[in-house]
Amino acid sequence: MPKLEAYHKGLPYSYAPGLFPAAGCLESRPDLCLRLLLHTRAKGSEGAMALLSRAEAAGIRVEWADRAIERIARKENVFAAMVFQKQETPLDESRPHIVLVEPSDLGNLGTILRTCLGFDLPDIAVIQPAADVFDPRAVRASMGALFSMRLSTFESFDQYRAAYPGHALYPFMLQGALPLGEVSPGRDAPWALVFGNEARGLPEGFAALGQAVRIEQSPAVDSLNLAVAVALGAYRFVHCPKES
Amino acid sequence: MPKLEAYHKGLPYSYAPGLFPAAGCLESRPDLCLRLLLHTRAKGSEGAMALLSRAEAAGIRVEWADRAIERIARKENVFAAMVFQKQETPLDESRPHIVLVEPSDLGNLGTILRTCLGFDLPDIAVIQPAADVFDPRAVRASMGALFSMRLSTFESFDQYRAAYPGHALYPFMLQGALPLGEVSPGRDAPWALVFGNEARGLPEGFAALGQAVRIEQSPAVDSLNLAVAVALGAYRFVHCPKES
Repeated sequence: MPKLEAYHKGLPYSYAPGLFPAAGCLESRPDLCLRLLLHTRAKGSEGAMALLSRAEAAGIRVEWADRAIERIARKENVFAAMVFQKQETPLDESRPHIVLVEPSDLGNLGTILRTCLGFDLPDIAVIQPAADVFDPRAVRASMGALFSMRLSTFESFDQYRAAYPGHALYPFMLQGALPLGEVSPGRDAPWALVFGNEARGLPEGFAALGQAVRIEQSPAVDSLNLAVAVALGAYRFVHCPKES
Repeated sequence: MPKLEAYHKGLPYSYAPGLFPAAGCLESRPDLCLRLLLHTRAKGSEGAMALLSRAEAAGIRVEWADRAIERIARKENVFAAMVFQKQETPLDESRPHIVLVEPSDLGNLGTILRTCLGFDLPDIAVIQPAADVFDPRAVRASMGALFSMRLSTFESFDQYRAAYPGHALYPFMLQGALPLGEVSPGRDAPWALVFGNEARGLPEGFAALGQAVRIEQSPAVDSLNLAVAVALGAYRFVHCPKES
């Protein structure tokens, strides 16, 4: 592998900054781990030393690289970063999906991954153009959840739909016909919850693709944060399906 | 008013950066508006020019202040900022409360305010030590929701409790006895949802103060993001109380 570069979308590898994300990569996807970078400050950290032992045991090269870590971490206090091979994974066609159409915020993206894994929804489709899920900031915000999930990007929603035509679609829209509290997902097909961009939401045409859902909210706010909307939708579908 | 300073917690005023937050301050709390700052780039923006007119009509001093705005906005592209008087507001004792115990992340705090206003829960207690709700970054993340809410900080949870002894408390804890999906808030007293710090959660003793609630989540993640947890709790209590 050549000299490590500052992260940009075109690189075949990325960085998982922070003990938790780096350990997540090592535990869940050792096959993707290329190198463990450590900061000399990590010498005082038990967690970092444990990570170091596990990496060595797994045959992963360990490197002391203060400058590289400081570049990756920006101003945050980070002791370790895993260099990992970027790799998309096909979604499970029998499981529910979360479909993010043109999400633009790296922090939201990471939070969404963490939340979806927390609700046992590891299948995520991202429709381009979108923030880069492999960006170290998204990986860090995901707390490493990324490595336990199946994630694919698609050039368009149509491309996603062609790949997974069987899912019952629930587009989340401010003007959606059905309030979230009244949704009752059918049992014949797996469902896919579809969310639009932070500023623009979903184009109107999505309402015709499935059962459009709106989250009950006061007119005092324009809309809810995207990560919040995904969490509410995911929780409702997984944990409080309407009795009927 | 003396020369404007870079924001710090000790200042009696703060900044609402961005068109939406600045307009929110002007609409909801004109009494707190001290000055409107505009960047010369704002001359091309219809929204900014409309804000300028409304500020002038309200008798608020308008100032072209590129450098001040750039300092406040950090690297974001911001056209306007409202300088406002910081002021806490006593909570409504007859309404539900959201109680944040030692929250530490400014972005989370802003997102929580926006979410709670979206669920018509404008009464927020913040227990110190905590991130500063008046910090321009929190105000910006709140999209100006702050100005439509009642917000008070307390030196300790006991101080909050002494001020509002009548609320039925629901501490949210990873080991809470009752799953969120099974909560059925009583109707005799207003409720208060209590959330701990991002990293530490609530101290164990909180379980004895009311009905401890846990959000159903997979063991694959350590915990949910704080803003996500507050959103799930607030939505459940407001929009899908259990039929019983």
